[in-house]
Amino acid sequence: MTKANMKRIGILTSGGDAPGMNAAIRSVVLAAHHYHIDVVGFYHGYNGLIEPEYVQQSKVLTLADVNGIIHCGGTILKSARCPKMHTEQGLQAAADTLAAENIDALVVVGGDGSFTGLIALQAYWQGQVIGIPGTIDNDLAGTDFTIGFATAVNTAIEAIDKIRDTADAFERAFIVELMGRHSGHITFNVGIACAAEQVLSFENFSPQHATQTLVTIAKEIKQAQQERHSSYIIVIAENLWQGGATALAQQLQQQGIECTACVLGHIQRGGSPVAKDRILATKMGVAAVQALISSKSNIMIAEQHSAMCHITLAEAIKQGKLVSQQLVDAQQNILALTAQTQC
Amino acid sequence: MTKANMKRIGILTSGGDAPGMNAAIRSVVLAAHHYHIDVVGFYHGYNGLIEPEYVQQSKVLTLADVNGIIHCGGTILKSARCPKMHTEQGLQAAADTLAAENIDALVVVGGDGSFTGLIALQAYWQGQVIGIPGTIDNDLAGTDFTIGFATAVNTAIEAIDKIRDTADAFERAFIVELMGRHSGHITFNVGIACAAEQVLSFENFSPQHATQTLVTIAKEIKQAQQERHSSYIIVIAENLWQGGATALAQQLQQQGIECTACVLGHIQRGGSPVAKDRILATKMGVAAVQALISSKSNIMIAEQHSAMCHITLAEAIKQGKLVSQQLVDAQQNILALTAQTQC
Amino acid sequence: MTKANMKRIGILTSGGDAPGMNAAIRSVVLAAHHYHIDVVGFYHGYNGLIEPEYVQQSKVLTLADVNGIIHCGGTILKSARCPKMHTEQGLQAAADTLAAENIDALVVVGGDGSFTGLIALQAYWQGQVIGIPGTIDNDLAGTDFTIGFATAVNTAIEAIDKIRDTADAFERAFIVELMGRHSGHITFNVGIACAAEQVLSFENFSPQHATQTLVTIAKEIKQAQQERHSSYIIVIAENLWQGGATALAQQLQQQGIECTACVLGHIQRGGSPVAKDRILATKMGVAAVQALISSKSNIMIAEQHSAMCHITLAEAIKQGKLVSQQLVDAQQNILALTAQTQC
Amino acid sequence: MTKANMKRIGILTSGGDAPGMNAAIRSVVLAAHHYHIDVVGFYHGYNGLIEPEYVQQSKVLTLADVNGIIHCGGTILKSARCPKMHTEQGLQAAADTLAAENIDALVVVGGDGSFTGLIALQAYWQGQVIGIPGTIDNDLAGTDFTIGFATAVNTAIEAIDKIRDTADAFERAFIVELMGRHSGHITFNVGIACAAEQVLSFENFSPQHATQTLVTIAKEIKQAQQERHSSYIIVIAENLWQGGATALAQQLQQQGIECTACVLGHIQRGGSPVAKDRILATKMGVAAVQALISSKSNIMIAEQHSAMCHITLAEAIKQGKLVSQQLVDAQQNILALTAQTQC
Repeated sequence: MTKANMKRIGILTSGGDAPGMNAAIRSVVLAAHHYHIDVVGFYHGYNGLIEPEYVQQSKVLTLADVNGIIHCGGTILKSARCPKMHTEQGLQAAADTLAAENIDALVVVGGDGSFTGLIALQAYWQGQVIGIPGTIDNDLAGTDFTIGFATAVNTAIEAIDKIRDTADAFERAFIVELMGRHSGHITFNVGIACAAEQVLSFENFSPQHATQTLVTIAKEIKQAQQERHSSYIIVIAENLWQGGATALAQQLQQQGIECTACVLGHIQRGGSPVAKDRILATKMGVAAVQALISSKSNIMIAEQHSAMCHITLAEAIKQGKLVSQQLVDAQQNILALTAQTQC
Repeated sequence: MTKANMKRIGILTSGGDAPGMNAAIRSVVLAAHHYHIDVVGFYHGYNGLIEPEYVQQSKVLTLADVNGIIHCGGTILKSARCPKMHTEQGLQAAADTLAAENIDALVVVGGDGSFTGLIALQAYWQGQVIGIPGTIDNDLAGTDFTIGFATAVNTAIEAIDKIRDTADAFERAFIVELMGRHSGHITFNVGIACAAEQVLSFENFSPQHATQTLVTIAKEIKQAQQERHSSYIIVIAENLWQGGATALAQQLQQQGIECTACVLGHIQRGGSPVAKDRILATKMGVAAVQALISSKSNIMIAEQHSAMCHITLAEAIKQGKLVSQQLVDAQQNILALTAQTQC
Repeated sequence: MTKANMKRIGILTSGGDAPGMNAAIRSVVLAAHHYHIDVVGFYHGYNGLIEPEYVQQSKVLTLADVNGIIHCGGTILKSARCPKMHTEQGLQAAADTLAAENIDALVVVGGDGSFTGLIALQAYWQGQVIGIPGTIDNDLAGTDFTIGFATAVNTAIEAIDKIRDTADAFERAFIVELMGRHSGHITFNVGIACAAEQVLSFENFSPQHATQTLVTIAKEIKQAQQERHSSYIIVIAENLWQGGATALAQQLQQQGIECTACVLGHIQRGGSPVAKDRILATKMGVAAVQALISSKSNIMIAEQHSAMCHITLAEAIKQGKLVSQQLVDAQQNILALTAQTQC
Repeated sequence: MTKANMKRIGILTSGGDAPGMNAAIRSVVLAAHHYHIDVVGFYHGYNGLIEPEYVQQSKVLTLADVNGIIHCGGTILKSARCPKMHTEQGLQAAADTLAAENIDALVVVGGDGSFTGLIALQAYWQGQVIGIPGTIDNDLAGTDFTIGFATAVNTAIEAIDKIRDTADAFERAFIVELMGRHSGHITFNVGIACAAEQVLSFENFSPQHATQTLVTIAKEIKQAQQERHSSYIIVIAENLWQGGATALAQQLQQQGIECTACVLGHIQRGGSPVAKDRILATKMGVAAVQALISSKSNIMIAEQHSAMCHITLAEAIKQGKLVSQQLVDAQQNILALTAQTQC
């Protein structure tokens, strides 16, 4: 398909919302407008293609619609999970809507679940499909960063900086549970940035060593409190420890350690995006439109070494991107250095 | 005691830390220095008067010690609960330390538990005692505001503004549990300021109506989602609902309402104080020193209608200050107005 | 006029925008809706009543229009100065529009210039008029606080906290010019809250002492740098010093003092309102509608000691509200205390 | 030199302070401690090696000295420009101090001026020298990012988000002058992230076209205001336009455009570093110590594609790193797209 043929792009946001999704929507609309292409917004994720109530909400997004949203968290297109995208009927209904609306190409801003849907949809619909990585978890392969990750990390460190004030005042241990689904990107970055005394994530912890880890940490906390008279903050990835931060806190208390669990939860999803996410989203939105004009399909827009590139959707989701060994090492080094201080 | 006799003031921070405690310490030190009075800092709350290990940490606070701390959360003097202050031996030990250190007057920055200790101490020690209200809960009588309250409210609304982004994106219900011990000041102020659809606090909820409340809220949420396609945020005071926000969320889910519980927890305690708390703490620190010079004792420094005043420690703690009926009414009005929108 | 007769309220925002104006608009619309009254929004301040282009933009504000705006800076109704309100033709045109639109009462959110217009308008139009104090300057008499003031103070201290980092790193003097038109509320509050070494405002400086002030400050800065090795921050009210902060910096440089001028400027106007301004605006919006229902007119809604009250528009603007002598004294005390440290 | 020989590292911060300098100092001290190496802190930049008054302030930095500083702006080692480093006597004095203090290696956190000094110093002193790039300007070659840049960009967008509120309320033009010395990194990134309608920087503007640029911009602003009824924000690099933002504003006013100049100034330097800068500084500090142990000298620690690497000091400063053409293009595209909206 060439530029001349491209008339209408559909766009939706899907899965957990991420700061910068609005910046991506804006960028797609501005870029498409430049090339005289209409952008139709579908609401509530893939449901916007399937549920008649939502389908009828779909509308051509005007320049005014995307004015003044670059700095807003959430998504003006709403989001949702959509179990029907795992069914034949759901996929067919989505394809029918796209055909009925004369959509030439569909852009989906979301994470791996959203891209799985996008791959499946291609068996039912012939239009071009492009993914834009929008998830705070940074767990898509082939791109250095996903939209929303940088903001989530900053939100978490601002929260932990506040917790540190109390931790220092009481020379107390806190366990802070961070989002990330099954990846440690948020946890490792936050751990380094807030000078956490301990980082527990998928990359450096295996469940069968839970008991041993517990004993080690309890010993370290006692040393920190008794020898350095200092606070001790553990950041821990969600879905890592059976029962989460709360269970870990109880188990440490059984070892005689006073400590408090904090689950940061959904404050990590929202908020005004930091510059990194606004710029990334803006570049990716332009790149997505340009890729469509160049007849690209079945790809995710990615950023590698600050440059835009394309990778196939299948590659993007095939394996959760790991935290770089270098970052794990850096954190371990710093921890080792800190631990060193106890001797 | 006159200014001429006043030579050494002791100061400590006690109980839960509150943003602005450092500003209060700074202000006491600067004011005392102006009147050629030394200020001795004791560490870890009342433990600093009782535990030998901490007593020996006590030191005269220099101007350099309090430079550059007005904007820091937490407390440079550390804080702690101190069960020994409920025992004769503890009180006697504290009195002995104050005598040994030649302390003429003791300033305690804290909440009602701290002031109870200060009242008790007077049976064992003859020096002047002054309380400065430092608690995020704003639950001391006789003062319009306590140090830390304004910051805690702002921290909470910034967090809920972020949660709102996700709530809006998913048209979902969130239950946010706020600190405040047994008072609703934080909850009501935050509820109004973040446009919460529902506020549950001691002033407008009684446990025997829990079941009925549950039904009402479930109905309201359904209406909000179905008729206004909007999110719904409940702010709820800690210690109010049996099992807290998590239990309430489960009970609502049993009513068929998808909802998510968020416990803001300790991020509400720390952080750089907002202007209100810095100024309040600065004024109170000066007022405390001036009150001591005027031979005042057994009082808490208070602010009423922007002016400094004194009330007895007994009055300050005799009954948790209630949220003004006017504020409760204002919030109920707004809720009523919002509810109106569903008809 | 009774509730039964009140059918349509007009609302506009006028003069310099202030954070919390949107919260006030929302509150007026919600409260009016509760009483089955329509609210018509006029755009671009009084121009919305005068310029045909803007008159035709006026519209009934729906609940959806005011959803999700409580936390937004600026004003959804736009604002402007309006010189025509000083002319007979302008006032008559405004009155004609109000009559043509069947407006029963007009609510104006703004400062003293806006209220002067509202007073003048009453000679041309018989409807009820109510002012809501919305200005960062806090310079209206009869109300403890105006909407936007608390946010502006916090914005300024966050900026100066950043400047302090550099000032400390270089042990350097900075002169920071703050808004406030002809009042020192922002300057004094910010000065105390950011621990400024010097505050220059209308309340403590007269131009005929400029030369002497210059010499004194130069001496103090030298002492600070040489004896305490510390930074030195002067906050100064706009419109106070001939040529502003830039001129003062040059004059100090001529005295051999290296220093840097910073004019904070318009960053002080915008931004998400702090809790205080959101709550104040919400309470005032409700109070305005209730006052209209009670047939009140020619008044400004005010807050005194946390309670809503009414004062006449004439009183509100008759004299710029002064900074309380208590606050000036507190600041002078603190400065004296600080100065003490140099001896 | 091998690890066994490395006994004492000296460290100083030099030139304009940048958020994250403290995180770098902490990291060097922790890493050195791990390898049983002492770190001596010198104060006030290179003056700490030259001025006897400052030399005697130098001290071994303990773990306690660097505890709790990762999130603090400014630099605990103070900073300064140091003209004497351009003289033989100054360089010799610095070398003498390093010899007298038994320093084996010197780490300097700073920008190109600081590294020029470090290169010159090697003619007078035989120890190892390593630079860590700490400057908000991001103008050093060979590293993707410098410490402080990400924070400065975020500080600027937060300020401009506030200015946008007022600009929108008045549909007004603002000109915001940003730091960056002679590079456009801050300006371009901020321009994209705050959706600026115009970006003026070294990469896309040459002074001989000033008159033409002025006419173009004036025309665009008029179109924006008249056709889109929108605000218009220009971000402009410092040192670009003769007379700066203020002069540009006056020249636009002469073209009949109402507009306001804002010089963000020193608020861009300070503040708590964002996660990116804390992590970058932490990784670079560790890398610097490890490089010293590996006998490296005359290099700057750099980050390329998220990995640590080394480049020679000469390369780092030989030419100001340009803004990537890709970013300039992206911004131009977005501008073009926006401009498109006026037709």
